[in-house]
Amino acid sequence: MTTFEVIEGGGVSTARGFRAGAKHAGFRSGDSERLDLALIVSDEPCAAAATFTTNVFCAAPVMVSRKHLSPNNTGTARAIVINSGNANAATGDRGLQLAHEVCEEISTLVGCEVEEVLIASTGVIGQHLSLDPFTTVLPELVNDISTEGGAQAARAIMTTDTYPKEYAITYESSDPSYQGKRFHVGGMCKGSGMIMPNMATMIAVITTDAPVDAPVLHTLLSYAVQHSFNKVTVDSDTSTNDTCFALASGLNNSELSVMREGTLAFLELQDAFCEVCSHLAREIARDGEGATRLITVRVVGASNERDADLAARSIANSPLVKTAIYGHDCNWGRIAAALGKSGACFDQRVVSIDIMGLAVCREGLAVPFDEDEALRRFENPEVEIWVDLGVGTAETTVWTCDFSHEYVTINGDYRT
Amino acid sequence: MTTFEVIEGGGVSTARGFRAGAKHAGFRSGDSERLDLALIVSDEPCAAAATFTTNVFCAAPVMVSRKHLSPNNTGTARAIVINSGNANAATGDRGLQLAHEVCEEISTLVGCEVEEVLIASTGVIGQHLSLDPFTTVLPELVNDISTEGGAQAARAIMTTDTYPKEYAITYESSDPSYQGKRFHVGGMCKGSGMIMPNMATMIAVITTDAPVDAPVLHTLLSYAVQHSFNKVTVDSDTSTNDTCFALASGLNNSELSVMREGTLAFLELQDAFCEVCSHLAREIARDGEGATRLITVRVVGASNERDADLAARSIANSPLVKTAIYGHDCNWGRIAAALGKSGACFDQRVVSIDIMGLAVCREGLAVPFDEDEALRRFENPEVEIWVDLGVGTAETTVWTCDFSHEYVTINGDYRT
Repeated sequence: MTTFEVIEGGGVSTARGFRAGAKHAGFRSGDSERLDLALIVSDEPCAAAATFTTNVFCAAPVMVSRKHLSPNNTGTARAIVINSGNANAATGDRGLQLAHEVCEEISTLVGCEVEEVLIASTGVIGQHLSLDPFTTVLPELVNDISTEGGAQAARAIMTTDTYPKEYAITYESSDPSYQGKRFHVGGMCKGSGMIMPNMATMIAVITTDAPVDAPVLHTLLSYAVQHSFNKVTVDSDTSTNDTCFALASGLNNSELSVMREGTLAFLELQDAFCEVCSHLAREIARDGEGATRLITVRVVGASNERDADLAARSIANSPLVKTAIYGHDCNWGRIAAALGKSGACFDQRVVSIDIMGLAVCREGLAVPFDEDEALRRFENPEVEIWVDLGVGTAETTVWTCDFSHEYVTINGDYRT
Repeated sequence: MTTFEVIEGGGVSTARGFRAGAKHAGFRSGDSERLDLALIVSDEPCAAAATFTTNVFCAAPVMVSRKHLSPNNTGTARAIVINSGNANAATGDRGLQLAHEVCEEISTLVGCEVEEVLIASTGVIGQHLSLDPFTTVLPELVNDISTEGGAQAARAIMTTDTYPKEYAITYESSDPSYQGKRFHVGGMCKGSGMIMPNMATMIAVITTDAPVDAPVLHTLLSYAVQHSFNKVTVDSDTSTNDTCFALASGLNNSELSVMREGTLAFLELQDAFCEVCSHLAREIARDGEGATRLITVRVVGASNERDADLAARSIANSPLVKTAIYGHDCNWGRIAAALGKSGACFDQRVVSIDIMGLAVCREGLAVPFDEDEALRRFENPEVEIWVDLGVGTAETTVWTCDFSHEYVTINGDYRT
């Protein structure tokens, strides 16, 4: 295993070759201070890859970024621009035109091809954006970006998130081809409602200074996303705007040779991508709308990976399980019911369930447990639900959060 | 179309040949008055059919009733016993033994075969029932049942339901073979959490005095359930105990010849079953846990029935859509997002959405609407969401309810 050092305060501008920053452009009416426009710029054209939402009602910025990275969601990029407050989704040709014009504006300011600009948006669906806020703010923003600006960018992409989500690590390669070389992987993301990514996720940006080309970067990103962001569900609602970008600047350093798939250096970097993406994914679940508890659902003993995933997601998406956790209730009957309807194959007579390390069900039957001890364990902000289906060796982990009054308050009153 | 008359106060004991009643047996600790044991008895052995939950973690009473109606969920029955307060689910061999003993007790008291007794339970999962409350109360209950007892039975099967659900209709057959004959179809059911039936539903009992044999009764029941209870979702959680029984007493009347599939009399009865089951199904959605609004999701213009169903269920199960309705917010962007992740095939550029008769989206784009008028329409306790996918002719209707603070309160604090 590679040893990773966490970089305190690190994020999307930690890897060498990247600058970031944010401004208030005014995409939300009546909020006169809030940062809502983020920009990440690579000093040189760099390798780029992305995964996007599978939602048919996908947003204009998703279509434009996909085009810029066509045909394989890979290419070269100089800049990523992200606004919050308006998703530019369900906005038709006018929305596409606007996203294109924003990219053009940035290409002029940064001095690159329009295809080297990637774009993402998050916020309300079905309302038109105007170009003015972008053209007013972007010239200043392009001047102000810095290697310290990642924190501001992470803040600007927030919607109902209660805190910015960023993370960065560094490690020294043990691969003889990169003897003593130190690489960085950092990133930022935002949640926190309409979260059940499918092949892509909310909005996240990962940067690295490792020397990889775009196809290898796409392989790294896809693998990491599959095992991190795609394992998070807040409310089973897959967004129209899910986007995860990765940029790699390392090939701009002529000292470094390109990393090939399957080498030790590649595997180290894969670990690093998984570490950063998993950390950010857990933060999304922890900060799910109205959440008071991060819930880790671990399913083992399934016949195959698909069954493990069906079972874990069925538990993680069950409003009855999530409200029970909110109520500090070890109501494992609801977990059993969620398993039973999941479509996973098993025999109820061999199922085991633990909640927070307490055995509550063995061979499909209730196990007496200490309710006071359970209440004590609920003081922990993280709750683990562990299920053994007892029929095979496949396993998976899914992250979610509890379902609170606050979720209802936030979403009964979001748009108005 | 057959003309149905609604029978005021009618229910499961309205059809000729059935008596019902209920007692307090004490399945809930600390609730010393509440009715929790219901019994329905047919004066003579009658045709019986059932549909059951598809949940793998199915409960002991489901297994016992399925055995009594094996091999095809059809047979002959004299009695149905239903307790609330304890689901007898995840209770292993001991739970099966108990369900069997309860059936035996009733067979002795009523004077029938044990296989002619059907059983259902609803309530907490994973706790053992004891036989005592049954043996103490059943002799008196068997004596007390009457043709007026349906209302008590409907009350006794309630869990978090806020009101009992029963309904009965009568009609005069126009079929020459049954000239001037009058038939009755009545029933009762309970909701109101862990509701997303799949091939069966929560607990419901339908009775009729029409002359049908068990296989035809099963055909009638399956069709009606598919178009009623199976179109309801409160929280996407399919219960371990879903059961729908139907009893038909008409063949005990020697004047009546058996109804054959495909005849006018059969079609009339099919309409009557659909009417009763749809009415009861809507009541379940209306009385969903914490519900303030009954939501009807109507999807038209789908390529095929499967797509229509995927689209409608995706909307009906979306916590974001349901909290928006709770917040009286015509947030159609969330409906668009739910459609987009549903798996149904469509092109966002041809989608139309109406909420409560207000056009909010045409050709995938926002349509300006009068927000004050929308707020006025939200005063109606029923909300219709109408979607035209614009790609075909298949359509469906699904019923659900909004998602409120009260749902979280109820389910954060149900077991304790």
